[in-house]
Amino acid sequence: MNEDLRRERASATFNPELLTHILDGSPENTRRRREIENLILNDPDFKHEDLNFLTRSQRYEVAVRKSATLVKKIREFGISDPDEIMWFKKLHMINFVEPVGLNFSMFIPTLLNQGTTAQKEKWLLPAQRLQIIGTYAQTELGHGTHLRGLETTATYDPETQEFVLNSPTVTSIKWWPGGLGKTSNHAIVLAQLYTQGKCYGLHAFIVPIREIGTHKPLPGITVGDIGPKFGYDEMDNGYLKMDHYRIPRENMLMKYAQVKPDGTYVKPVSNKLTYGTMVFIRSFLVGEAARSLAKACTIAIRYSAVRHQSEIKPGEPEPQILDFQTQQYKLFPLLATAYAFHFVGAYMKETYHRINEDIGQGDLSELPELHALTAGLKAFTSWTTNTAIEACRMACGGHGYSHCSGLPNIYVTFTPTCTFEGENTVMMLQTARFLMKSYDQVHSGKLVCGMVSYLNDLPSQRIQPQQVAVWPTVVDINSPHSLTEAYRLRAARLVEMAAKNLQTEVSHRKSKEVAWNLTSVDLVRASEAHCHYVTVKLFSEQLLKIQDKSIQAVLRNLCLLYSLYGISQKAGDFLQENILTDSQITQVHQRIKELLTVIRPDAVTLVDAFDFQDVSLGSVLGRYDGNVYENLFEWAKNSPLNKDEVHESFYKHLKPLQSKL
Amino acid sequence: MNEDLRRERASATFNPELLTHILDGSPENTRRRREIENLILNDPDFKHEDLNFLTRSQRYEVAVRKSATLVKKIREFGISDPDEIMWFKKLHMINFVEPVGLNFSMFIPTLLNQGTTAQKEKWLLPAQRLQIIGTYAQTELGHGTHLRGLETTATYDPETQEFVLNSPTVTSIKWWPGGLGKTSNHAIVLAQLYTQGKCYGLHAFIVPIREIGTHKPLPGITVGDIGPKFGYDEMDNGYLKMDHYRIPRENMLMKYAQVKPDGTYVKPVSNKLTYGTMVFIRSFLVGEAARSLAKACTIAIRYSAVRHQSEIKPGEPEPQILDFQTQQYKLFPLLATAYAFHFVGAYMKETYHRINEDIGQGDLSELPELHALTAGLKAFTSWTTNTAIEACRMACGGHGYSHCSGLPNIYVTFTPTCTFEGENTVMMLQTARFLMKSYDQVHSGKLVCGMVSYLNDLPSQRIQPQQVAVWPTVVDINSPHSLTEAYRLRAARLVEMAAKNLQTEVSHRKSKEVAWNLTSVDLVRASEAHCHYVTVKLFSEQLLKIQDKSIQAVLRNLCLLYSLYGISQKAGDFLQENILTDSQITQVHQRIKELLTVIRPDAVTLVDAFDFQDVSLGSVLGRYDGNVYENLFEWAKNSPLNKDEVHESFYKHLKPLQSKL
Repeated sequence: MNEDLRRERASATFNPELLTHILDGSPENTRRRREIENLILNDPDFKHEDLNFLTRSQRYEVAVRKSATLVKKIREFGISDPDEIMWFKKLHMINFVEPVGLNFSMFIPTLLNQGTTAQKEKWLLPAQRLQIIGTYAQTELGHGTHLRGLETTATYDPETQEFVLNSPTVTSIKWWPGGLGKTSNHAIVLAQLYTQGKCYGLHAFIVPIREIGTHKPLPGITVGDIGPKFGYDEMDNGYLKMDHYRIPRENMLMKYAQVKPDGTYVKPVSNKLTYGTMVFIRSFLVGEAARSLAKACTIAIRYSAVRHQSEIKPGEPEPQILDFQTQQYKLFPLLATAYAFHFVGAYMKETYHRINEDIGQGDLSELPELHALTAGLKAFTSWTTNTAIEACRMACGGHGYSHCSGLPNIYVTFTPTCTFEGENTVMMLQTARFLMKSYDQVHSGKLVCGMVSYLNDLPSQRIQPQQVAVWPTVVDINSPHSLTEAYRLRAARLVEMAAKNLQTEVSHRKSKEVAWNLTSVDLVRASEAHCHYVTVKLFSEQLLKIQDKSIQAVLRNLCLLYSLYGISQKAGDFLQENILTDSQITQVHQRIKELLTVIRPDAVTLVDAFDFQDVSLGSVLGRYDGNVYENLFEWAKNSPLNKDEVHESFYKHLKPLQSKL
Repeated sequence: MNEDLRRERASATFNPELLTHILDGSPENTRRRREIENLILNDPDFKHEDLNFLTRSQRYEVAVRKSATLVKKIREFGISDPDEIMWFKKLHMINFVEPVGLNFSMFIPTLLNQGTTAQKEKWLLPAQRLQIIGTYAQTELGHGTHLRGLETTATYDPETQEFVLNSPTVTSIKWWPGGLGKTSNHAIVLAQLYTQGKCYGLHAFIVPIREIGTHKPLPGITVGDIGPKFGYDEMDNGYLKMDHYRIPRENMLMKYAQVKPDGTYVKPVSNKLTYGTMVFIRSFLVGEAARSLAKACTIAIRYSAVRHQSEIKPGEPEPQILDFQTQQYKLFPLLATAYAFHFVGAYMKETYHRINEDIGQGDLSELPELHALTAGLKAFTSWTTNTAIEACRMACGGHGYSHCSGLPNIYVTFTPTCTFEGENTVMMLQTARFLMKSYDQVHSGKLVCGMVSYLNDLPSQRIQPQQVAVWPTVVDINSPHSLTEAYRLRAARLVEMAAKNLQTEVSHRKSKEVAWNLTSVDLVRASEAHCHYVTVKLFSEQLLKIQDKSIQAVLRNLCLLYSLYGISQKAGDFLQENILTDSQITQVHQRIKELLTVIRPDAVTLVDAFDFQDVSLGSVLGRYDGNVYENLFEWAKNSPLNKDEVHESFYKHLKPLQSKL
């Protein structure tokens, strides 16, 4: 092991194994996760090639092969728990991008959720066995966020008892679905349902797109890959154009809405339940944000401990770059953020399961808040993580630009999270809608509960902003609980400001909708403040649950750093309403610098506790043993440009110039 | 042309052609630039292929071929002015990444600057004709920022009158030089010079690395490509390992320092002049930041005018997404930033040439400030641009992730600017060193001049921060001049705070250097504030030079937006010292929203004025004619994954699973 890393680990103030247990949820979870990871690490069928040296087509082919192995092995090893399958996939697929991914994450769940018993009988087993490979085709070339704007039509023909699927325009071509380009032979297609001359809005249809056996597109189907992207090389995101393409009536998913053989439309009882999948995926993405950021921090912090550069004192040996305050200032707040988001992710998962049980018993009361919270937190954590991964990459100097660092791949794999499953700004505005509703409720005398209960404390008759100065300004910048209060006040203030600005705009305009648009910058700001508060609150509450004193101490410092760093970045908000004073803000800056020094000795051990396998980091710089430079040189030799045939093909352009020498 | 774009252009309040003349410097410059661009656009030898569909090796080969064409054509067309060559290259190379780039930007200039007459005679002409292809090998696997830490040695052997070049360790392997991996046959190598048993530090040597004629690495030389990177696919950044490799004494560049045949070292008179190249490149990079951001804004704003999505009022047609306040808030401050940086870049170029003339006449007095300013502004503009390009990309929704948008390429091509030619944090600290020196000078009673002259106004005996409240707080948020004052006060305050913190640390520690490190977060903050002030100042001064009233009006709004947006982002700084009041900050937020509405009708025309050729944007989304969706569909069909042979190679993995159906 690298001498620097050995020394770092020896100087830690806590036992990382105990922290890993906390992150995994229990020692048993850690044990079982490692057991599954070892299945992969010790199995020659899972040997990893370095995707960085392959062309896109090669990467895609490797991913298809891996998916096939995966399905076989999961069955062979008898793994069935969803969490365990996830651990398995994460290590095997590295970037977790797999062409058949949507078969499992969207096609099968939608079939289970919206299919009738007969439909499940027909398609479920073949799909689970990857005989049928399905995807989920919703977005179109010209349509994403606004579902009602989708143009694909499904017109019922009672004579043949078929639906005629059609892509009437260029903008109606289905665009983006994962696995659609090459891999899938079926798609669940979202289309505007027409029957008996009337449009009934979006419904889901199972559409065969390629022939089983030959895998050729079926007549009437135009399908292909949408071309190279920023990352996601292994995924064949695809397009689908249907030309009056007929499918049997039975291919409409009919658990809720139905079309009778004669064309009569039977509408669903409730559509609230379709919420569920969205909420689940978004809360899952919060955990993914934490995980991606933790990976980036692991790489950047280990490398910063191994890398020696420049000098602090002239003539002395070059220090580890982790000893530079500016480097600590770049990385430690992000490390703290990774921990914060981990606990938010765990809370979201837990809450989702709790509320899901309530829903099972017919209690939908908490669903609106959960929906609003997942939307906002998905946006808040993914935006932050997006910027943070790049900050980690750029903290690695030149080597951060090389794929040897693993960081470019982590970034390009993560960044779509800001847009898919609900574009972030749209998400923030959904949260804002809930906040405005809650504010109005309080204003009309009713109490609200859950994470927005702070709105109950807003003085109801305030007119002058100055009056807020009567709020207690006794923030203790060394107390996570007190800092949570500060964030609570900030959120309350920004929600109120947005609400008042909205009211002002409404009073000036005829239309509520135009007023909403003209306040939307304030609304997003309010949602961000709300999510920031929730994150600080959950992190500080987590501290109370921790038994081990040494771990509590180090997490407490991370929690303080996360909270104080946020205050320093948004100092204006905290100053404007006297939540903190001028001199407290100066103290905050000073305290952050102190915390960097306090966290410094534990930094490497704090990323070790995330317990990533080297192979899942995909990084030469971030290896556990810190053996960087030799590995980097070996890695570079594999560059395809170093092959002889490349040499010949390019040198022909230069040779003519040299002949004149 | 797209109907939306036609309408946008028709509603502009100004004539974009006049603004283009301002951006180019004069109508004559615009005319000549277009003339050169048309040479390329109309020449069949310059036909562009879409690099997005090629493998890295193919992209590299295309780039080599293009470089060869370029050299031939520049001579053919008789273009010799450096600016004109730049225009030519920019359009031809698109991403401006060329394997032989360093031959022209580093090898030849270093030869000219540090070579003797005899050396120039030997190498210059062949290098200009690309018979010799040179690169510049400085950074090593283990060493970047800290030049004194470089390990490569050049030991003089008086017996044979040769230098023995050696890479003694893995960390000493030369790493990163552009064009080194495959293309170059010579390199200027920076190495620690040893003669007569003593080390004299870094010197430059011309080292042949590949045989002319065969292009095979010479004996003793190990050379190759360092592997795939985040972008820069066309560039063969390389490694170089030398094993006691001998070159003639005459290959040391000896215009300044010399080694006599007997091994006697003759030291140079002054090394201040080596400043020059660095300052030039960094000031050039400021202009490049402006240019890259302008490209990203062009694409994102045109697409936002063409894209219709969601609804503001239910039931009405989907609006252009540019009509959403949140979208305007994402893009217009960046558009304003692109303009701000353009004027900063023009100023830097002008100043560089002015000071360069002074230097020619032996006057080095302004060099330290210029050096400090270019360092800081390089960092300030490249960090901002880096984040801003990604913000533009993510403002394009899903299509921003596709290479069809052109935005991923703009990002990956630009982002290294934050690290090369001086890592940004290191740059900010260099600026800080100048600021601290200036502060000390004022403190000791001397006046300073230039951009830091605001330090002269600092009340010299202030002890309590509260006293600053006596500064005039009469900022008019509608006056660019007054906002410049606000930024000036903020810069003064943060420079002073950093200086005081530094003094405090010095008084607590034995070592000045440790104190510097423990203040470095404050020092970077001070430098940022200084650079922000300079940018606002230059933009607001630019307004005074503009004759045309309509253009002055629109640029004034951009200048206000740029300045106010910065204040809103850093509100804490302006509040803490009462530069602005609480209620002014609220007004700033409100005024920004108003400015978005004011700028909205001119947005498309403001990006048109940058006058980028479609081909240089490399974007389907950003095309001048706005014909997005059909072009996108056509583009996607070229995806290599859509080729039949790919189909066969991957389908073999899925077929076995289907056979059981």
